[in-house]
Amino acid sequence: MSRTDTSEWPCTIARTADLLGDEWDLLIVRQACLGARRFEDFRAGLGIGRNVLTNHLNRLVELGVLSRQPYQERPLRHHYRLTDKGRDIFPILAAMAAFGEKWLSGPEGAPITLHHTPCGRDMRPETVCGHCGEALHVRETRVRPGPGHASSMSDTDTE
Amino acid sequence: MSRTDTSEWPCTIARTADLLGDEWDLLIVRQACLGARRFEDFRAGLGIGRNVLTNHLNRLVELGVLSRQPYQERPLRHHYRLTDKGRDIFPILAAMAAFGEKWLSGPEGAPITLHHTPCGRDMRPETVCGHCGEALHVRETRVRPGPGHASSMSDTDTE
Repeated sequence: MSRTDTSEWPCTIARTADLLGDEWDLLIVRQACLGARRFEDFRAGLGIGRNVLTNHLNRLVELGVLSRQPYQERPLRHHYRLTDKGRDIFPILAAMAAFGEKWLSGPEGAPITLHHTPCGRDMRPETVCGHCGEALHVRETRVRPGPGHASSMSDTDTE
Repeated sequence: MSRTDTSEWPCTIARTADLLGDEWDLLIVRQACLGARRFEDFRAGLGIGRNVLTNHLNRLVELGVLSRQPYQERPLRHHYRLTDKGRDIFPILAAMAAFGEKWLSGPEGAPITLHHTPCGRDMRPETVCGHCGEALHVRETRVRPGPGHASSMSDTDTE
């Protein structure tokens, strides 16, 4: 699997894209969000080969997205649970669900519905400005070098 | 490039993961959000080979994420612009930026800052419930079969 390492690029989007790796990593985190814990839960939910799944689970543990805890000794079996860092990937998946509901659902409607238990409603997630709370649009957002940006990149208007 | 096709899975997250393809597709959409238009803009921004870039741009045009418009005849040159569908990927990238700022920045701070022009503030994006506006957490969100779900999948608590 030859990929370009973008984990050190001066861009939080590129770094996150690197962490999420290929599609399987993202789908494994999705399974974990849906309640998968055991190796066989992930395998059944994804229809993925054992070796491929093992490699991806190991990678996600190394990256601190999942934690591995033994729940049985003979034979040794582990649970995989989302860490705080892993749980923070959920808003990205929620934003993907909103996109998919709008653009990738057939005339029959979306295959899944998200339900927000605190307010008791079915809903579509929205990604908003953390300051004013308005929905974010690419044409209304600028990307600027942050405090951790080494070079003298100038302001960039999006789109 | 052998990938499992999840574009028809009964899950809007899996379908979106399929559309975003591998890391390059996502990074190309990011470049387009940052203002890239011409082939050479994308190439310079990503350091990607010509053939690989061509294949990815063609794929994103086929999927309706980018549109291709000629801007020069001899030799023929094209602009690649985000479609409405492509622009709607931006909230996913914004959610990735928020994650990256929190978890993938060094002690020096995030390499980029997002600025919301309508409210005039630097901000961190938040993914919220489209109904009540509260930030979404995996433990407070349930996934249920939607109207377009064929099978009799039952409600699933997240995490």
